[in-house]
Amino acid sequence: MKSNLGKRMTIINPASNYGTVTIVGVGLIGASLGLALKKAGVVTKVLGVGRSKENLDQALKMGAIDGVVDLVEATKQSDVIVLCVPVAQMRAAFEVMEPHLESRTMITDAGSTKGDVILAAKEVLGKKACQFVPAHPIAGGAQHGASAARADLFQGKQTIICPLQENSPEDTALITGFWESAGSAVKKIGVVQHDAIYAAVSHLPHILSYALMASVVNSEDADQKLGHVGAGFKDFTRIAASSPEMWRDICLGNRAAILKELDQYLLIVNHMRKLIAENDGAGLEKLFNKASKARQDLDASE
Amino acid sequence: MKSNLGKRMTIINPASNYGTVTIVGVGLIGASLGLALKKAGVVTKVLGVGRSKENLDQALKMGAIDGVVDLVEATKQSDVIVLCVPVAQMRAAFEVMEPHLESRTMITDAGSTKGDVILAAKEVLGKKACQFVPAHPIAGGAQHGASAARADLFQGKQTIICPLQENSPEDTALITGFWESAGSAVKKIGVVQHDAIYAAVSHLPHILSYALMASVVNSEDADQKLGHVGAGFKDFTRIAASSPEMWRDICLGNRAAILKELDQYLLIVNHMRKLIAENDGAGLEKLFNKASKARQDLDASE
Repeated sequence: MKSNLGKRMTIINPASNYGTVTIVGVGLIGASLGLALKKAGVVTKVLGVGRSKENLDQALKMGAIDGVVDLVEATKQSDVIVLCVPVAQMRAAFEVMEPHLESRTMITDAGSTKGDVILAAKEVLGKKACQFVPAHPIAGGAQHGASAARADLFQGKQTIICPLQENSPEDTALITGFWESAGSAVKKIGVVQHDAIYAAVSHLPHILSYALMASVVNSEDADQKLGHVGAGFKDFTRIAASSPEMWRDICLGNRAAILKELDQYLLIVNHMRKLIAENDGAGLEKLFNKASKARQDLDASE
Repeated sequence: MKSNLGKRMTIINPASNYGTVTIVGVGLIGASLGLALKKAGVVTKVLGVGRSKENLDQALKMGAIDGVVDLVEATKQSDVIVLCVPVAQMRAAFEVMEPHLESRTMITDAGSTKGDVILAAKEVLGKKACQFVPAHPIAGGAQHGASAARADLFQGKQTIICPLQENSPEDTALITGFWESAGSAVKKIGVVQHDAIYAAVSHLPHILSYALMASVVNSEDADQKLGHVGAGFKDFTRIAASSPEMWRDICLGNRAAILKELDQYLLIVNHMRKLIAENDGAGLEKLFNKASKARQDLDASE
């Protein structure tokens, strides 16, 4: 199954078996991936690497993983390694893996940002970077940890692949098939494009949502306000229940694209502020109309 | 049922009948109210006043109203009048009603802002302002118009009453019972408090949501971005599908409180921008933690 261009030996069985798969970071995404792969019957064994014994025990109990190892041991044993840790921990993971990484082993990830992860991979893995096919499964939710995992988390969802120049077509196809076997529809996008798109439609909304909760919580009459929230407020702030650690890393990892989107957003908000302060009803209605129509079109296009 | 303190004659039947009720503005809220009151069996007749023949015909067809009249005729005939028009139209409605307003008639409203509506009522109705008991049903959704109406729209939801100094306890109790018969749980809050609370938990989120849709739609790669939205973006922007006209009026009607909340919000967002630009992971995590915990507490308190 793997490319045999004189670069690496073919070890993994053809088509539907990825052999020994290690999941590094067995949280919502990692544990769900383990459940999905085992349910699809495409793995011989799933190993887990992580920081929290309690969480790993939970993952074992659920059958998301079959055993727990450290990352060095996992690197030696695995055919595929999936990095599901917060993006700021990817560099350290590559550093531990690199000396033990054999040519048969493929690596992929589940990071919400790609530019920073790819930079770390190229700097640390060097020539072995061709063994890393970057991915971003668009799945998950506000809950975190193995206890929230589901085998169908990726069903009907998209996984973005951002192949490196160094990746062979065969290796890209292998990792594409890997994510497809978990239930995803795979789509290829360039890394710069990926980071700009997700800055706008995912990273920025999370920041704005956190900011609204923080603003309400910090106000004098916070309790009163929180006692009168409706469906609109709850919809808007739902994503503020997400993992602070993960989102801290995303903000720093995709800093340039996020700041660009945030600055564009602030231009619009400040313009709205001006229209409100100046009593410009026609201006407000025009802006709201454009936004409202676009949001309705979004629902219609589903 | 009405106070008989020598001010007005008691005409309305005691307890469970509000007589002839007119709904001015037969949209989602107005038509739903008509359906709810009729289902509860607490009215003799429901009349509708509005701008759009098509919408009024729809309301008639659904049984939300029994007849259509103009506002002058409605004022003469009604025991209770409910103003369900956008808040910027309330003043004009009071102006049409005032000369024909008899002492037996109570008025209430469904406006999302209270300070501006109350000011208009006091200026236009003068001594008759005691016949107006301001209300704000916290119900509804992104859809608008009679065709979206439901008899159970207010079931289990709150209606805020902001009694005027001029309202007698008996009249406040009557209007409280009126909204309760539609299915609401009624709560009394002072008008300044109301406008501050709803600026924070309703008006500001709508503005921020409209701004995000506008920002994405205006960008160079808008189509790409809109092609990759996930559940988070959709949750965040759901309220941007709301009625632009209604939200224009709310922004202008509650301007002072909204600008206050918006400016506090912008302080937080600009602080987050600074943390991101300066790579301050610890600062970001601390802020996200506080917000995340508050959001989880909100779910837990339901």
